[in-house]
Amino acid sequence: MASNSFGLFFRYSTWGESHGPGIGVLVDGCPPGLPLHEDLLNAALARRAPGQNPFTSPRAEKDEARILSGVFEGKSSGAPISILIENRDAASSSYAPLADLLRPGHANFTYLAKYGCFDYCGGGRASARETAARVAAGVVARQLVASLCGAVVAAWLEAVGTARAALQADAGRAAAFAGQSPLFAPDAEAERLFQQELTQAVQEGDSVGGVARFNISGAPVGLGDPVYEKLSARLGYAMLSIPGCKGFELGEGFAAAAGRGSNLNDPFILRDGRPACSSNHAGGTLGGISNGEPIYGRAAFKPTSSIGLEQSTLDLRGQEAVLRLPPGSRHDPCTAVRAVPVVEAMCWLVLADALLMRRALGEAPCS
Amino acid sequence: MASNSFGLFFRYSTWGESHGPGIGVLVDGCPPGLPLHEDLLNAALARRAPGQNPFTSPRAEKDEARILSGVFEGKSSGAPISILIENRDAASSSYAPLADLLRPGHANFTYLAKYGCFDYCGGGRASARETAARVAAGVVARQLVASLCGAVVAAWLEAVGTARAALQADAGRAAAFAGQSPLFAPDAEAERLFQQELTQAVQEGDSVGGVARFNISGAPVGLGDPVYEKLSARLGYAMLSIPGCKGFELGEGFAAAAGRGSNLNDPFILRDGRPACSSNHAGGTLGGISNGEPIYGRAAFKPTSSIGLEQSTLDLRGQEAVLRLPPGSRHDPCTAVRAVPVVEAMCWLVLADALLMRRALGEAPCS
Amino acid sequence: MASNSFGLFFRYSTWGESHGPGIGVLVDGCPPGLPLHEDLLNAALARRAPGQNPFTSPRAEKDEARILSGVFEGKSSGAPISILIENRDAASSSYAPLADLLRPGHANFTYLAKYGCFDYCGGGRASARETAARVAAGVVARQLVASLCGAVVAAWLEAVGTARAALQADAGRAAAFAGQSPLFAPDAEAERLFQQELTQAVQEGDSVGGVARFNISGAPVGLGDPVYEKLSARLGYAMLSIPGCKGFELGEGFAAAAGRGSNLNDPFILRDGRPACSSNHAGGTLGGISNGEPIYGRAAFKPTSSIGLEQSTLDLRGQEAVLRLPPGSRHDPCTAVRAVPVVEAMCWLVLADALLMRRALGEAPCS
Amino acid sequence: MASNSFGLFFRYSTWGESHGPGIGVLVDGCPPGLPLHEDLLNAALARRAPGQNPFTSPRAEKDEARILSGVFEGKSSGAPISILIENRDAASSSYAPLADLLRPGHANFTYLAKYGCFDYCGGGRASARETAARVAAGVVARQLVASLCGAVVAAWLEAVGTARAALQADAGRAAAFAGQSPLFAPDAEAERLFQQELTQAVQEGDSVGGVARFNISGAPVGLGDPVYEKLSARLGYAMLSIPGCKGFELGEGFAAAAGRGSNLNDPFILRDGRPACSSNHAGGTLGGISNGEPIYGRAAFKPTSSIGLEQSTLDLRGQEAVLRLPPGSRHDPCTAVRAVPVVEAMCWLVLADALLMRRALGEAPCS
Repeated sequence: MASNSFGLFFRYSTWGESHGPGIGVLVDGCPPGLPLHEDLLNAALARRAPGQNPFTSPRAEKDEARILSGVFEGKSSGAPISILIENRDAASSSYAPLADLLRPGHANFTYLAKYGCFDYCGGGRASARETAARVAAGVVARQLVASLCGAVVAAWLEAVGTARAALQADAGRAAAFAGQSPLFAPDAEAERLFQQELTQAVQEGDSVGGVARFNISGAPVGLGDPVYEKLSARLGYAMLSIPGCKGFELGEGFAAAAGRGSNLNDPFILRDGRPACSSNHAGGTLGGISNGEPIYGRAAFKPTSSIGLEQSTLDLRGQEAVLRLPPGSRHDPCTAVRAVPVVEAMCWLVLADALLMRRALGEAPCS
Repeated sequence: MASNSFGLFFRYSTWGESHGPGIGVLVDGCPPGLPLHEDLLNAALARRAPGQNPFTSPRAEKDEARILSGVFEGKSSGAPISILIENRDAASSSYAPLADLLRPGHANFTYLAKYGCFDYCGGGRASARETAARVAAGVVARQLVASLCGAVVAAWLEAVGTARAALQADAGRAAAFAGQSPLFAPDAEAERLFQQELTQAVQEGDSVGGVARFNISGAPVGLGDPVYEKLSARLGYAMLSIPGCKGFELGEGFAAAAGRGSNLNDPFILRDGRPACSSNHAGGTLGGISNGEPIYGRAAFKPTSSIGLEQSTLDLRGQEAVLRLPPGSRHDPCTAVRAVPVVEAMCWLVLADALLMRRALGEAPCS
Repeated sequence: MASNSFGLFFRYSTWGESHGPGIGVLVDGCPPGLPLHEDLLNAALARRAPGQNPFTSPRAEKDEARILSGVFEGKSSGAPISILIENRDAASSSYAPLADLLRPGHANFTYLAKYGCFDYCGGGRASARETAARVAAGVVARQLVASLCGAVVAAWLEAVGTARAALQADAGRAAAFAGQSPLFAPDAEAERLFQQELTQAVQEGDSVGGVARFNISGAPVGLGDPVYEKLSARLGYAMLSIPGCKGFELGEGFAAAAGRGSNLNDPFILRDGRPACSSNHAGGTLGGISNGEPIYGRAAFKPTSSIGLEQSTLDLRGQEAVLRLPPGSRHDPCTAVRAVPVVEAMCWLVLADALLMRRALGEAPCS
Repeated sequence: MASNSFGLFFRYSTWGESHGPGIGVLVDGCPPGLPLHEDLLNAALARRAPGQNPFTSPRAEKDEARILSGVFEGKSSGAPISILIENRDAASSSYAPLADLLRPGHANFTYLAKYGCFDYCGGGRASARETAARVAAGVVARQLVASLCGAVVAAWLEAVGTARAALQADAGRAAAFAGQSPLFAPDAEAERLFQQELTQAVQEGDSVGGVARFNISGAPVGLGDPVYEKLSARLGYAMLSIPGCKGFELGEGFAAAAGRGSNLNDPFILRDGRPACSSNHAGGTLGGISNGEPIYGRAAFKPTSSIGLEQSTLDLRGQEAVLRLPPGSRHDPCTAVRAVPVVEAMCWLVLADALLMRRALGEAPCS
């Protein structure tokens, strides 16, 4: 019920404000015996850390995760895993001038209306920093998935504003390149285009949106539970919970809505002696259950609400006002960039949960 | 955990196969005192009933809902509301020939792999008939929402295959037209185009996809709970749980990903003395919480997997085979059409849940 | 959230009022492949049916369960299992005179206060009839447990009012006798004493309480999940949800509180080459997890609130009044009698859930 | 699902091992605006801290709670509240000799069987230290309850081994005395008897069980949700989740099972113009819903499994062995003593949850 948790069997809960002592995540429902070490967490956190490239927030923090519980002699013990990420270098003062202004496109208006208070220093729970906790939980999920099947998750940036990457024929190759790219671009040309688009936006004191693409290969048949725990619906739910996410597609998504059944039905063939599909328009699920083909889709992120340009707005007393971010205030011009590792984490988390669900319910005990 | 339920506080569970004795829904967490009558349910069910127009399945059933519990002297009693919809006119025999074939784009392959059995007569839980139970639950949700606020839900068909309706400036008007249109089209021109597209698809023995648009006006500020019960994420989750849904957008969705913050941030102004937005690119939520503007978005549906054309496939023994639907077998050429009332129902259900959640948690008890 | 469901993975939801068209249960989270047939349900329902012995309500209904979904070709399909039990012989009229009186020891006062209405015809959700739905769900749980392990559940009546059965050295034998006894007595002497106590209470127009004992043998080690899904806590929660249950003990319960560690710690020995305990004061769990010994405990039930004697009370307008049950009104003098099969059902349901939980979470995936 | 959380709306999750860096609790579903300060937490923690009296573990730690999130400017912000309690003075070495012995009455056998590992240093999740996190969460719950109603929770020790306190006519007075008593005794005579019993047990190197009594006065009518969220069942579930709890009674509990309806039905009278009961055998609930009378009951705790006397057992290789606790190893001779503040905390937590549930579901929106 509590709204800061995600997952049914493999369940994690995030907490923390971006300018408090720290943020963290509690992972419960993790089976024992999984190798876990803080280095794994820190490596993953480093991927989404700010200050990595000229286009992310200059905030210089380096996230370090501490495992406070649930690991005994290097392996998960079956107990809840509590992970703490301390906040450093939190220059809240720079936000003080904004304390009494409604910020267009920003959550402070709705938080104020709903909770009667808003942590203007960094956005409280609405801060993208919450996603660091997801990345940490995603590592635990990845270890669980690795112990149960050979599924591999990859994500990359497919578009920044109007700049789009070419469609990637080879997901593995795109993922490999993205792994090295500061912008999570799938190839050199995309990286160049994204850089161009971002440079221009920054120069104009503006922000841009972007699209992340995910690809899960090697997932077994049978993940996802009709009718409300469909793998497709869980993935969409997971992505849409990421700050700024405004759209989700599985497989061909909206394009499929414009197509014909005769073109989009993926024919069944034999592959390695087992039923498989000769195409994958569906994106790896049928009836919400994984069919053994790669599971792919996209998540759309709106532009960062914080921009350098002046914006007309209201103050808390309802007076017209002009919002000017203080010079040197810290925000990414494109949150989609750092969303890429979060999209990956959400894939691992959804997979881990679906795998446990299948283990509990999905197999006939008598057969 | 059980995967046939949706909602946290206002929770419903659907059950039933399309060719068993009936289907039904159990609504729990419904406050007492709501006026409820079977006529309300049957009126809603009639909207999504098949056989209404030349393009939906000729199946002639007329759904009738029976309230078996939870209503006392015409009002909800606070007890769980059990609703039964009997199946009639279920000609399962016509499906027998398909029993041992994998059906491209269809769930029988994944169900067989996951459960070791598949109710080939009508698709079991994968049947679109499950959505009738959602429509019935949606009526209960609508009554609850009406008792708590003035929110109004509307949905219409925005696209069928490549035919698209014009953007509707007046949601109320579009909804009114759609309410009368057998295709849930928002205006006469759209109806004509949709009809054309459907006629052609049917003539070619093919199927088409479509896009449904929803619009919620009059919702109060403060619905949706960060970070995993965001209203936007719940709506997406709800839509993506509908059979055939492959994409979801809130507000401008993927288009927002191509835009700039300076254009997409909705400026705050005073309206009737209260803060409001002079534009609504966000689609009615900020930080996942409703901001008082209309909440709108779209859901994309793939073409019906069942088509008249022959398809190459495999049988259950792995032998190559050709799938020919028996003459007169019943399926809609475009499931998106009948999905429209289901999209509306899911909006009511998500709203009802969010309203109860806000009532329990969202208001400061001390202030 | 919704309060009419129980279980996490193996989850069931009951619905229905004792004087509506029927009651029912929806079981979700049931793996596929379990043999299920209405005869199994009806045999179980017959055990708790009223009118079986001179001391239960003369209501002559014979419960018949109908499986409406979730079973395909004689086995569970993995889909939700909807079970309907129609109400017959519901003479609600006889309750009309009580409609405007508060009934001492009865739930109509709290239901009226909470829900603003009360189904005076039979007690609505407070009616013991709700437990018939649990018994039906318990059969599904029993089939699941039987498919996963050799656990066997038994329960019997240990006390009626001041009459107590001797402690049973042989649980299997006691269960066998109870299975044939109209009063679920564990031996002939207990049956005689219970009958005596009941006869006297009935003659005096009074009611009595009772104690049910349960015994689970053959459960594997490792059921129950710390710290809030302890098997002991789940069993207690389950029993205390039964109407009229006011107390629960696992193992020696309150007697253990008066003892010493040196007497109550069960020493470990080797049995069939595996660690076991040479005594079982704990009642089969250590740290809330099953330890392989029989799991036993007791549930206490207060006397039926409905009695033949006059009781002073208030009417709904707050005026002093005298409550006289109409002649021939139907109620058991001791609800504990018919609670015995319900206690068994709750054991099966808790076991089924714990077994699925262990399957999902309790085993190290790497070892 | 995850088994380290409790509560539906007002939900908390505990984590941590007694010999790791610390333990903690995450509270989610807490409304905004509640005054919260670490002093409140520390005052409550001090009550259950060890080393307070000669009979609790000599462990000298002083618990200090740190609020890491969810509090803004002294009040709850509606965000999850993360509370950290660092472990100090953890002399795990002293437990090393026990690492390969099965400990009678202790959870290490079942943990080893279930998880394949056991944190022998202090008992991991089975350690009573987990209850400190409950006490901290209980303070948050208390603040919420105080903001919504005038309910007051009190608990005291009613029995230690065979020593029993007299029945307390005045709960307030008993609570006041217990608040000052190192043994949470309700009066001076009880304190003397308890001390005697404990002294003897300690001298004999043994441990004893005990019984805690709770009393909730001032709770409004209408708390608790049939049929599975009955207030009585939730309280029992909560108590039975406390380490060592083997029994629970609401109202007269097992004694009620030996009584007659004519004696136990609480007659309705007018009090201050509102319906009330002239006796309270039921213990404050009817049909599982609070009726406005004091809610009282008892929880039974078995003796501490750790005793000074030698015990015959097995080692992990299945060899017979003798368990001797190392000299100066730390354990309470009676865990029931320090369970008293935990019993209070669980009452606050159950009340908070029930109050939010009532706020969400329990009131007729139309009336």
